[in-house]
Amino acid sequence: MEESKLSKLPGESYSRHIHARFWIVAEQGHGYLGIGRICLLENIERFGSINRAAKEMGMSYKKAWKLVEDLNTLGNEPLVMSEKGGKAGGGTRLTAMGQWYVNRFRQLEQRLSDFLQAESAAFDELL
Amino acid sequence: MEESKLSKLPGESYSRHIHARFWIVAEQGHGYLGIGRICLLENIERFGSINRAAKEMGMSYKKAWKLVEDLNTLGNEPLVMSEKGGKAGGGTRLTAMGQWYVNRFRQLEQRLSDFLQAESAAFDELL
Repeated sequence: MEESKLSKLPGESYSRHIHARFWIVAEQGHGYLGIGRICLLENIERFGSINRAAKEMGMSYKKAWKLVEDLNTLGNEPLVMSEKGGKAGGGTRLTAMGQWYVNRFRQLEQRLSDFLQAESAAFDELL
Repeated sequence: MEESKLSKLPGESYSRHIHARFWIVAEQGHGYLGIGRICLLENIERFGSINRAAKEMGMSYKKAWKLVEDLNTLGNEPLVMSEKGGKAGGGTRLTAMGQWYVNRFRQLEQRLSDFLQAESAAFDELL
């Protein structure tokens, strides 16, 4: 990992002396959820649109759609669902499974951060 | 992060559902210790030679020497020290500081692994 990539990302777990990233991985060994994909899911929920979420993140539409396709194979049911037409004019939203993953990831992130903060204290003597 | 990079590395923290990497970072914001650099330090200690350690890891000598140079600016004292001549014919070894970092990293790795293993159990209901 290059040092330039070590700058803190929003939501990345970090303490004074320990920097960490984590991924939720699927049982089958393919498919995973990291902070970038979580941000995409959160933006889809926020804007109700994959294209709008991609634009917000400076990500190409093509990449965002590909990621959503991948994410929808992660669990037993899709994480993102598109609705056609209707009064609200369609739109895209997270399924209950999608929301569960986002919440679980953010909770874990907070607990990991607390864990690293406590571990970090042991470094103060020498760093 | 590409999926192909998600394969388990030796010593990488891992649980059934959560995969994590961590780095010990220097206070100044430059310089860090990750699993790759720890392996290099361990091989230097094992072989008493930076060149031999590099060869063992399939790393170029140039890269290994550059990493050691970086590592020696991480703490208040060097992590690696070369000795010239003498009965033992010289050689390279870890300083007390270098050994401290390696031990601390490996201990932290184990505790993080235990932490993630416990957290991972909460995923079993849905994954």
